Amino acid sequence: MRVMGVDPGLTRCGVGVVEGAPGKPLRLVHVSVVRTSPDAPIAERLLGVAQGLEALLDELRPDAVAVERVFAQHNVRTVMGTAQAAGVAMLAAARRGLPVAMHTPSEAKAAVTGNGRADKAQVTMMVTRLLRLETAPKPADAADALALAICHVWRGGAQARLESARLGARSRGGNGQ
Amino acid sequence: MRVMGVDPGLTRCGVGVVEGAPGKPLRLVHVSVVRTSPDAPIAERLLGVAQGLEALLDELRPDAVAVERVFAQHNVRTVMGTAQAAGVAMLAAARRGLPVAMHTPSEAKAAVTGNGRADKAQVTMMVTRLLRLETAPKPADAADALALAICHVWRGGAQARLESARLGARSRGGNGQ
Repeated sequence: MRVMGVDPGLTRCGVGVVEGAPGKPLRLVHVSVVRTSPDAPIAERLLGVAQGLEALLDELRPDAVAVERVFAQHNVRTVMGTAQAAGVAMLAAARRGLPVAMHTPSEAKAAVTGNGRADKAQVTMMVTRLLRLETAPKPADAADALALAICHVWRGGAQARLESARLGARSRGGNGQ
Repeated sequence: MRVMGVDPGLTRCGVGVVEGAPGKPLRLVHVSVVRTSPDAPIAERLLGVAQGLEALLDELRPDAVAVERVFAQHNVRTVMGTAQAAGVAMLAAARRGLPVAMHTPSEAKAAVTGNGRADKAQVTMMVTRLLRLETAPKPADAADALALAICHVWRGGAQARLESARLGARSRGGNGQ
């Protein structure tokens, strides 16, 4: 299973692609950061993020995309742009018919370090070890995207099954929002 | 000048297209609501909003798109979806090379009623009057999108000039964020 993890942002959007399966070794396929200028209008920045992610999706052809879940209560100043970059990533995946999952930062940290409150250095160290890299992945910014992709490789199957059960139960119960 | 106003949302995304110029009569071109199911996964809903808006942009060919500015502090439960729908609208416009403006709900209300805190009934009444419609525009949900488009017809030119002055000043001053 090949998974693209996306750590959404307008200034820096981390992208990490990993191959693996639960209980099998992981392999690094790609790591990079899509950047846009803080001086550009927001619509142009969203277009830059979309074009960057679309080029990577078309080149690397992942089986699924995992996007970091953004919370409204954190970083109020930048949260709207982060949410919009996440939306652009989900849209690009949906256009290609790819399943999209969201994982929280704590879930990704817990998946790779065993601790949902691990710091950046711990996450980078474990990502380096799990992918059997000789040096830490560069750019460092994208370690979170790799952690997210690894988290999805390990949790993805289970979560997809839960989600389809939930949707089935909801549509049977007619529980609209 | 033909302007598409977008009142972003995942369950209902209001779209109103208006033609006019400052000091000239306004004309209603289109009003509708793009809907997606609350039971669908978010990525699919964003795709539904994108496809609905793109079809309208390609059919109605506005000169500019005005999107309601979403604030992080309101409606925390739904704000992320609203922000993402706004991002999808901005992206669709940017892909077509169209200028995108954002106006706050208060700016749109003040533009059409003279009162930034006008209620829905006042906004609908003034939109109906300004567009010289015999009955209130339907669906009622989209009156906000029409108010936004009218706001942009009247303020757009001035704001575009301010924005380009601001960007010019910023790039001259090298004030990166």
